[in-house]
Amino acid sequence: MKLRRVVANNIRTLRRKGGLSQEELADRAGLNRNYIGMIEREENSPTVDALEQISDALGIDPVVLFQNR
Amino acid sequence: MKLRRVVANNIRTLRRKGGLSQEELADRAGLNRNYIGMIEREENSPTVDALEQISDALGIDPVVLFQNR
Repeated sequence: MKLRRVVANNIRTLRRKGGLSQEELADRAGLNRNYIGMIEREENSPTVDALEQISDALGIDPVVLFQNR
Repeated sequence: MKLRRVVANNIRTLRRKGGLSQEELADRAGLNRNYIGMIEREENSPTVDALEQISDALGIDPVVLFQNR
């Protein structure tokens, strides 16, 4: 599986597990709301900086986003 | 440590361990030569797609790039 898809799936799964909408995750992470949707739809290849902000917002270690390939 | 720095340090360490110059790694990964230097100097926040190409070129699992924080 492409890494972009792995990351997209992990973010969506962890976001839903935390009971957050895309908008709520974006707000917590300090990112644009459309950006989260694009990442989850694999339309965008997120940067390391964005993954750090998303991980902080989800309360996880960033390494988790690359797991379950 | 910022995730961008973790990634930069891991790429530099693994590249040198493999006996590769920045130019050789860039060529193997199909990336611009200046881009690898910018990532290692933390001047650029690499994308997930780039990390996948770099991991493939280094023969490692991408998860390794986020480790040793």
